[in-house]
Amino acid sequence: MSLYDLLVGQPLATSEERAEHIGPVAGIPIFGLDALSSAAYGPEAALTLLIPLGLAGLAHIIPITLAIILLLTIVYFSYRQTIDVYPHGGGSFTVASENLGAHAGLLAAAALMIDYILNVAVGISAGVGALVSAFPSLQPHTLALCLLILFLLTVINMRGVRDTGNAFLIPTYLFIGTLLVVILVGAVRAVLAHGHPIPVIAPPRLPSATVLFTPWLLLKVFSSGCTAMTGVEAVSNGVGAFREPTQANAKRTLTIIIVLLAIFLGGIAILCRVYHIGATDPNGPGYQSVLSQLICAVLGRGWFYYVGIGSILLVLALSANTSFADFPRLTRAIAQDNYLPHVFLIRGRRLLYSYGIYALVGLSAVLLIAFGGITDHLIPLFAIGAFMAFTLSQAGMVMHWLRKPGPRSMHRILINGIGAFATGITLLVVLVTKFVDGAWITTLMIPTIIFLMIAVRRHYDGVARATQLDRPISLEDIHPPLFVIPIDRWSRMTEKGLRFALKLNAQVEGVHIETGEESSKLEQLWKRNVADPIAQAGLPVPTLVNLPSPYRFVLVPLVDYILQLENRFPDRQITVLVPELVVKHWWQTPLHNQRAELLKLLLLMRRNEKISVINIPWYL
Amino acid sequence: MSLYDLLVGQPLATSEERAEHIGPVAGIPIFGLDALSSAAYGPEAALTLLIPLGLAGLAHIIPITLAIILLLTIVYFSYRQTIDVYPHGGGSFTVASENLGAHAGLLAAAALMIDYILNVAVGISAGVGALVSAFPSLQPHTLALCLLILFLLTVINMRGVRDTGNAFLIPTYLFIGTLLVVILVGAVRAVLAHGHPIPVIAPPRLPSATVLFTPWLLLKVFSSGCTAMTGVEAVSNGVGAFREPTQANAKRTLTIIIVLLAIFLGGIAILCRVYHIGATDPNGPGYQSVLSQLICAVLGRGWFYYVGIGSILLVLALSANTSFADFPRLTRAIAQDNYLPHVFLIRGRRLLYSYGIYALVGLSAVLLIAFGGITDHLIPLFAIGAFMAFTLSQAGMVMHWLRKPGPRSMHRILINGIGAFATGITLLVVLVTKFVDGAWITTLMIPTIIFLMIAVRRHYDGVARATQLDRPISLEDIHPPLFVIPIDRWSRMTEKGLRFALKLNAQVEGVHIETGEESSKLEQLWKRNVADPIAQAGLPVPTLVNLPSPYRFVLVPLVDYILQLENRFPDRQITVLVPELVVKHWWQTPLHNQRAELLKLLLLMRRNEKISVINIPWYL
Repeated sequence: MSLYDLLVGQPLATSEERAEHIGPVAGIPIFGLDALSSAAYGPEAALTLLIPLGLAGLAHIIPITLAIILLLTIVYFSYRQTIDVYPHGGGSFTVASENLGAHAGLLAAAALMIDYILNVAVGISAGVGALVSAFPSLQPHTLALCLLILFLLTVINMRGVRDTGNAFLIPTYLFIGTLLVVILVGAVRAVLAHGHPIPVIAPPRLPSATVLFTPWLLLKVFSSGCTAMTGVEAVSNGVGAFREPTQANAKRTLTIIIVLLAIFLGGIAILCRVYHIGATDPNGPGYQSVLSQLICAVLGRGWFYYVGIGSILLVLALSANTSFADFPRLTRAIAQDNYLPHVFLIRGRRLLYSYGIYALVGLSAVLLIAFGGITDHLIPLFAIGAFMAFTLSQAGMVMHWLRKPGPRSMHRILINGIGAFATGITLLVVLVTKFVDGAWITTLMIPTIIFLMIAVRRHYDGVARATQLDRPISLEDIHPPLFVIPIDRWSRMTEKGLRFALKLNAQVEGVHIETGEESSKLEQLWKRNVADPIAQAGLPVPTLVNLPSPYRFVLVPLVDYILQLENRFPDRQITVLVPELVVKHWWQTPLHNQRAELLKLLLLMRRNEKISVINIPWYL
Repeated sequence: MSLYDLLVGQPLATSEERAEHIGPVAGIPIFGLDALSSAAYGPEAALTLLIPLGLAGLAHIIPITLAIILLLTIVYFSYRQTIDVYPHGGGSFTVASENLGAHAGLLAAAALMIDYILNVAVGISAGVGALVSAFPSLQPHTLALCLLILFLLTVINMRGVRDTGNAFLIPTYLFIGTLLVVILVGAVRAVLAHGHPIPVIAPPRLPSATVLFTPWLLLKVFSSGCTAMTGVEAVSNGVGAFREPTQANAKRTLTIIIVLLAIFLGGIAILCRVYHIGATDPNGPGYQSVLSQLICAVLGRGWFYYVGIGSILLVLALSANTSFADFPRLTRAIAQDNYLPHVFLIRGRRLLYSYGIYALVGLSAVLLIAFGGITDHLIPLFAIGAFMAFTLSQAGMVMHWLRKPGPRSMHRILINGIGAFATGITLLVVLVTKFVDGAWITTLMIPTIIFLMIAVRRHYDGVARATQLDRPISLEDIHPPLFVIPIDRWSRMTEKGLRFALKLNAQVEGVHIETGEESSKLEQLWKRNVADPIAQAGLPVPTLVNLPSPYRFVLVPLVDYILQLENRFPDRQITVLVPELVVKHWWQTPLHNQRAELLKLLLLMRRNEKISVINIPWYL
């Protein structure tokens, strides 16, 4: 297998590539997954805050859900216009940068990065929440299960499994189907029972009310419920993937996704009300997710229940998986503008931007650990990023119409304006009501990320200036360098290092650190195996220097000696030849060469222009 | 500051160095910390298993504690003899290797490594348990607090704080003092109240019994309680630290530690009985540690309570800290025998074996995360390693007396024999009763570690054979190498690379990957700034090669070209000069050179003896 094959291999298709020229049927799983799976945690997040109100709390879930559906409708009409203007895809980063300037772009970038990271954490934790509902004995292992799923997603993505849309198709439609069946059957039963159906399995009794309802609580519940809207921007990001008529197909897909999401949210709210289903304490034992209670109440705990829970777990895990495709592409786009380390530009062996994946996994693992893998604790952080991206995107569209007025401009400005206004107000509401519960973390992270991005950009600009050269090469002080080879014992590796130096016709000093008593033996070997034959061949003869090391240090006397040499020969380059063992299998790596690496690091730390290190590989 | 100073700096004193020439007063904190702090989790571990028995369970704690104190006494007399024989310190690894052979040594090594790792995890989690008892609102953050303390210990140890015994002295004596006061006052009150004292603050009511007492439960409770004995071997490990008469001082210290521990265990058991204090569910809300309940019951929740809890937290954290000194020394000793990677031999800048610390921290973090930072879940894993080390050490002593019989040999064999038998039986009991609860993990890890150690040894032996050389240096094929320099643009870094090659009088090819359209400009610059001046100076003129890269790959065409060169010049070494930017501050590291590293890696992966890489550092 040639290196090129190895490098190119089977690329991990990104959402767009995977979905090249698709219609709504394939589009709904790919672009609707994120949005639709939000129905598994959004309503639950709202209901959790209503726990202290007891049974009375359920009365408030319907008006709050109606408000969220209204907001969803506004955002829907607003994004239809984004699809019209950006036929190749208009993500928040693109729309904000193009229409509102570079700083708005950075703000959108920071918001999106946080959004993607939280999407992983929330998707996984909500999936584990479903699993724990079905198998309560797993509850003490919530965090471990979350990290396990994160690990599996990482391995799958790093190996580059080629996901043919089908991987998304089946679980998504299973999830949609299960939820629609539950809502339909539940609704029919409720109507037949005149609004008082008897649940197949009764949900846990709601606790008695301990607090009174306040407008402040109303706003908090609304803010939590808004997490159900995360992910609805996906279609507008990926318009280019649809087949002709591209924009019409994209809009049709968006319409179906929004309608389904609205049915889910409305249906869950109404059924919770009539079946008296509330959230259970996510910290306490006996936790059961709202959807799990709902399926049990409507259809019992048979095979259908386990299929439903399975599809919820799968859809949430796959929804976390979308960040694995989107986050590295976002960080690459930002790194191209020098705002993030260039390491995000490097494509690994599987053609994916591995470092973006490392960053995503590391940060979402930190979030999962910090919040114990409990969705409810992550929710306050979540909506901020998403709604900031919504607002910037809609505001960017308003600016677009103002700059390039066309037919029905006023009408279009009005729609995007209402979108920007509604999502902006929601952003403020979320910010204020969730601030102490965790939104402060997001609020702190966004400016921190922007500050870091600007610092990275400054650094790169500084380096470009510092390495700038406008004159011809300097040809002063061209003297042959002096070579130093650390000698451990007479071995094949030593031979290879010496041969390399001989090929360069260089003056060589072998340096041996005496930690034991075998140095006189090494001197004899050196004379017989090195000095004599080289002298006979008429080549420059290497010398051997013995350095005593009473404390058995190896690196310290070596570095000291190299620095002395550098002082003794001020006009010559000192080149340290370090034989390096290259192992056959990656797992042998930790067994070798750390001392060589440390030597190199110590020499680099001296920041001495005249000292350089050459690693001579020796293959096992 | 010279590099040597930087390297040597202030060494982190190991237990022995810190304690050079000490008496019992300084010896108790240093060598007793581990053993005495076990009183904070051992009795609690036993009581937790008695929860399902309700109030009736408390009746069993006293006989079980008596059995543990008896075992402690046996181990005490056994270790007195180890002190006699090993005046410079006889750890289990030493005693087992010397008397029972290399394989028993490996077994002891594996058991000790696991013991040290668990000591960190249990010490921290039990300390956090005390903290959470005092401040119940912290309970949801148990794991995060554990990881925070682990992080703090790591930072403290990596920076190398110079701990002057005092750091151990004050908290240990505070802990001993607090616990003695509580036991004394509690006992006096109990006697005055004719065995029915009224607690100052009543402990949480014990739940009603849900199961009946069985002999199997008795053994399980005993096994959990045995974790109170971990750490008693410390004195015999560090005999050499005591002042003359060394062995007498060591024995005196051991006696005091064992007596104190016995008083603690007995006192806690009796007071729990008379004050009706049981363990609380460590998973549920409202968890409170046994010692916290005990202090509350005897002396209330005043300043004394917070001082007591504070000293418990501190002593447990310091007890975890002892592994930070002992684990890296153990891994170094094993690595010297080639059974662990040599990286454990490298002393970092602060004179400590940093990689041992990394391994310890990584593995204990895994344990803390896997078990949610809850002591009770870690306990089943803990006693195995400790008791295996006890047994091997005592069995080694028996073998010692058999080999070198002296006066009173039979008497001594009997004492160590009883020690080995008692700890061996306990090991079996712990293994059987705790197997499904987690001891299987330890049981699986010990052979795994031994297998890995043997594999590492085999690998090193194989490498030594493969690099072995018994003939003089080969002087065939000494041809000058061909140099390749990847050229990005004309910069100071490019200049430095070219100058290095000129100093070696080498033939150079500059290779430019055309990803944009500026290559014609670079060609002009090359002619004006490089080729012309070098030709005028009469030096070998470097050539410039442009490689088109339509897909904007950089590394693939470069590697391909280098391989082509290698084919074209079969008898010459190909040396790739990679200019490398060396940043000023460590935190700038992630911003540079990953592509250079990847190029090096890709070339190494070819395993081609004729290709080598030279990094030319350029200092920012």
